[in-house]
Amino acid sequence: MAQPLNRYKADLREIEFLLFEQLKLSEVLGKAPYESWDEETAKTVIEEMYKFATTVTGPYNGPGDVEGCKLVEGRVKTPTGFKDAWKKLYEAGWKSLSIPAEYGGQGAPRTLQAIGEEMMSGSNTAWNMYSGLTLGAAEVIEHFGTERQRKLFASRMFGGVFAGTMCLSEPQAGSDVGMAQTSAVKQPDGTFKIRGTKCWISAGDHDMTDNIVHLVLARIEGAMAGTKGLSLFIVPAKRVNEDGSLGAGNDVVTASIEHKMGLNGSATCVLTFGDNDDCIGELVGGAEHQGMRQMFLLMNFARIGVGLQSIGIASTAYLNALEYARDRKQGSSIKAFKDPAAPRVPIIEHADVRRMLLEMKAKVEGIRALVFKLAMHQDRAVTLAGKDDAGAAYHQGQVDLLVPLVKAYGSDQAYKVCELAIQVYGGAGYTHDFPVEQYARDSKVFSIYEGTNHIQSLDLVARKLGQNAGKGTQEFLGDIAKFVAAHKGHAELGAAVAELEKAHEAVASTAMQFLGWFQGGEMERVPLVANRFLEMMSELAVGWQLLEGASIAAAKLGAASEKDKSFYKGKIAAAVFYARNVLPSVPSTAKIIASGDRSALDIPADGFASV
Amino acid sequence: MAQPLNRYKADLREIEFLLFEQLKLSEVLGKAPYESWDEETAKTVIEEMYKFATTVTGPYNGPGDVEGCKLVEGRVKTPTGFKDAWKKLYEAGWKSLSIPAEYGGQGAPRTLQAIGEEMMSGSNTAWNMYSGLTLGAAEVIEHFGTERQRKLFASRMFGGVFAGTMCLSEPQAGSDVGMAQTSAVKQPDGTFKIRGTKCWISAGDHDMTDNIVHLVLARIEGAMAGTKGLSLFIVPAKRVNEDGSLGAGNDVVTASIEHKMGLNGSATCVLTFGDNDDCIGELVGGAEHQGMRQMFLLMNFARIGVGLQSIGIASTAYLNALEYARDRKQGSSIKAFKDPAAPRVPIIEHADVRRMLLEMKAKVEGIRALVFKLAMHQDRAVTLAGKDDAGAAYHQGQVDLLVPLVKAYGSDQAYKVCELAIQVYGGAGYTHDFPVEQYARDSKVFSIYEGTNHIQSLDLVARKLGQNAGKGTQEFLGDIAKFVAAHKGHAELGAAVAELEKAHEAVASTAMQFLGWFQGGEMERVPLVANRFLEMMSELAVGWQLLEGASIAAAKLGAASEKDKSFYKGKIAAAVFYARNVLPSVPSTAKIIASGDRSALDIPADGFASV
Repeated sequence: MAQPLNRYKADLREIEFLLFEQLKLSEVLGKAPYESWDEETAKTVIEEMYKFATTVTGPYNGPGDVEGCKLVEGRVKTPTGFKDAWKKLYEAGWKSLSIPAEYGGQGAPRTLQAIGEEMMSGSNTAWNMYSGLTLGAAEVIEHFGTERQRKLFASRMFGGVFAGTMCLSEPQAGSDVGMAQTSAVKQPDGTFKIRGTKCWISAGDHDMTDNIVHLVLARIEGAMAGTKGLSLFIVPAKRVNEDGSLGAGNDVVTASIEHKMGLNGSATCVLTFGDNDDCIGELVGGAEHQGMRQMFLLMNFARIGVGLQSIGIASTAYLNALEYARDRKQGSSIKAFKDPAAPRVPIIEHADVRRMLLEMKAKVEGIRALVFKLAMHQDRAVTLAGKDDAGAAYHQGQVDLLVPLVKAYGSDQAYKVCELAIQVYGGAGYTHDFPVEQYARDSKVFSIYEGTNHIQSLDLVARKLGQNAGKGTQEFLGDIAKFVAAHKGHAELGAAVAELEKAHEAVASTAMQFLGWFQGGEMERVPLVANRFLEMMSELAVGWQLLEGASIAAAKLGAASEKDKSFYKGKIAAAVFYARNVLPSVPSTAKIIASGDRSALDIPADGFASV
Repeated sequence: MAQPLNRYKADLREIEFLLFEQLKLSEVLGKAPYESWDEETAKTVIEEMYKFATTVTGPYNGPGDVEGCKLVEGRVKTPTGFKDAWKKLYEAGWKSLSIPAEYGGQGAPRTLQAIGEEMMSGSNTAWNMYSGLTLGAAEVIEHFGTERQRKLFASRMFGGVFAGTMCLSEPQAGSDVGMAQTSAVKQPDGTFKIRGTKCWISAGDHDMTDNIVHLVLARIEGAMAGTKGLSLFIVPAKRVNEDGSLGAGNDVVTASIEHKMGLNGSATCVLTFGDNDDCIGELVGGAEHQGMRQMFLLMNFARIGVGLQSIGIASTAYLNALEYARDRKQGSSIKAFKDPAAPRVPIIEHADVRRMLLEMKAKVEGIRALVFKLAMHQDRAVTLAGKDDAGAAYHQGQVDLLVPLVKAYGSDQAYKVCELAIQVYGGAGYTHDFPVEQYARDSKVFSIYEGTNHIQSLDLVARKLGQNAGKGTQEFLGDIAKFVAAHKGHAELGAAVAELEKAHEAVASTAMQFLGWFQGGEMERVPLVANRFLEMMSELAVGWQLLEGASIAAAKLGAASEKDKSFYKGKIAAAVFYARNVLPSVPSTAKIIASGDRSALDIPADGFASV
């Protein structure tokens, strides 16, 4: 077979602008614990990771979609090329970039690790699921595990020797995690016998490692009902001896794999634990009933990961559509519409194609800015830890607030960006000849897994908005107010900033309205409009980040090289487009929410249809 | 193999409400040329067609997607069950319902035929492509062909003996039809030798009939460039003797079929004509250079057909999601959110699920009302033809205006309704276990084929709005103004009607703005916002139709049976939801358009990205 074709594209200039010119990553480089990092090293790493994504993982994205995963004699076989790419990934060390040196990592800021995740995921989303979940599961053990568990499991997972998963869902317990019935019975030696069925387990089985360490939520005999009675267990597929060598199988069976709309190269498994009463698990950190708290570290990691998946796919969808629009000739200029002999032009010259491309560019770059702003808040919190508690708390507060926005708005818009990408291609985009239809299929599940987007919006309005007496929310709104005040009079961006100001007011007043509803006992109104509020707040945040980037671009325009001039003008155009075409819907949505329509609550259940 | 499962669902009560209580189909039944039809017959036909869709075509929708079409030894093999369903379709006569009796048809109103198309297409979109295009092609020959062509070709196509296609696109000529290079050289006997390659030919080849009659756009030697130089040819795959028997092959070759995101059971072909200089075609009606005019009859038919496809899929997606939401238990009532032991409830009890379902219901029923309003205008124009020219012209004007709305808004929203349907299912919706992911894949192409949705929006703003000195537009807006005036003070619907009024003003003022741009030489601004205007105008029309239905429902509520009470309340809730949650975006969009953002035009071409 000829080497398959890479379709993955990223715009390194844009990524470096975001990290170094806008988010000022260099401010944390060189500071503990990132002493060994500087801007040049960081840029080299970004370039090398991009090379990896376009040569090692990217070529197997399309073929992996067609080939899919197969369940052969009880084991999942992944598509051609996946196992080899896994090996190369851990040899190159990209997955352990932000891991401490004691685990063989390179102690880089999370922001850099996140760039790697965007690229690996954008180039081959299905493939990256396996190592992504492994990294997240390892971090849980590193954070909450015993010394022995860290050495025995986490270190091997960070190094790609073992893989990992997160096992929450059960057939009757998806969004409703607290209904989990998987049971754990304590044994005399302190371990537990695990019994139950878990479903929707991404990377639940595969052939890339000799062992898979499942993190399983289960209820210890006699524990209370609901989420508070859940504990988290380390349940390896094969038992692990104290020297790290593998023992017998651990009674974990891959019962089936799902047949899906997309992500066909990622095995989504139903796993049964303990059908033969021989499945042994051990408590993470030896702590009972701490399962949800521990799992939330992984959930947060995974939710940010969905934001990165969203940006990874949306970005390559945009750049592929852009390339097509520059190449494909169709129609003449609108100025020559009466002359059938007028020369044909590349479709990027048509206004509607430009409109679609600019909408994609604005969403991709704005959401990326938000995701990496979140990562930078993480890194800054780390550098301030133990030195500046208030500063660290501020950054952590912004992380908490941004997680649901990044996950839900990112995933909803990724699917929409893919829809636009298909439309730019026309009929060609509907075929397997180009990558965008796969991108659409792969990205559809982002709005569902790791907590549906409605769960995210409830997390935002019922938890994050009011967390720490609303401090994080006030600081978020305060930061935007400061930006507005500083740039209201901007010659080029002033009109766009005025739209941001209106959006800011609308979000603030809607948040107050929710407070009123909560306090007035009208809580049932909140979930009805929570998704729209999350969208409003995300649009505000994205608009802000785009305009911040544009203000930097505008300041640099005068002294810029010709090439950078075009780049900066592009940044400005994207921000203005978003501000003037998307932000005006924020006040409009606020009015809709304020009007308090209850029709969806009031309609009789049998009024939805007569069937 | 066990009989595959039907997943198709329709709500007959809703369809009958629309046809008989809202659109008053009975006003045309019994009138020439529909003398032989009455309400009871019509309802019986609807029920029988639904039975056909759920038993004959529906069961092969899922399997047809998996099996797909194959090109075997130069001929397309369609999925299992398709050919048998074709045979049963023509035996039952559903495809010739609105065809005159002289062609073996039943002379029914188009509205009834359209119900059949919605159901056949909703139950198995891929399968219905074959007979849908055959019907459309036959109508072109019936309308423009010679007496001989009508007897030889059209009658056999109406009866399902021959199939038909429309061959416009070429590799370099998609949206830009005028660039077609397929050539026609006149022969001494008056026929033409055809030579060229056509692509994206739906149903371009298959195994359901012994012959396929292609309608091919080609340029006669020496004809002018552009669309005006194109002629339309009847080009059968096999030559047809004067007695209707088949002769030799006609040098039409199926070069390849596309591998697509969806509609896998529908063969999308590249066809080559005359590679061996032996492909004979004859001019439709013997008329040269009338190709575009003739083809437009088929294009209009096909665009309305896309509206029907959209409604067919969106409706069954909604009803499947509704059934799942009623069955699937997950989570407890929000009122008991602190009690982990509270009973689990069907997810339809959760506010956000209700919101999604009501949004789907409103869009499905509102767009269906618009599509069938269009069909009713067609039928009323027919009953008035030759008796009341002004009346007939009014109805034709509304048909012309509604075609782009129905095609573009219908298709965009069908994809969105499928997205919501997947979200209601959660992870399950992402798998092949339920039909909604297929619906999403199948429906994606609706926004592209038969003229992309941007082509529709240009048709609307640059042609239809101003057609006949804007008469149709004024009548459309006038009809809505009358409705608003009559229902502004409605006790239950007044607030919703007020939103309709604001949307009406916004559409009217934006249309005037376009006029100003056209007259002021700023035409290039128009395509930039044409899609958004089409969306605004569609939302206005859909809101109007929903509120009209709601006003009828409200009037009948008092005297209704218990079951009808719920049904009518559902109609009211859907209209109020749409008016209060969707219509407010119309004035907001009007403001955006008026603000005249040019960023997508002004961005330098190399400013989109640095790659």
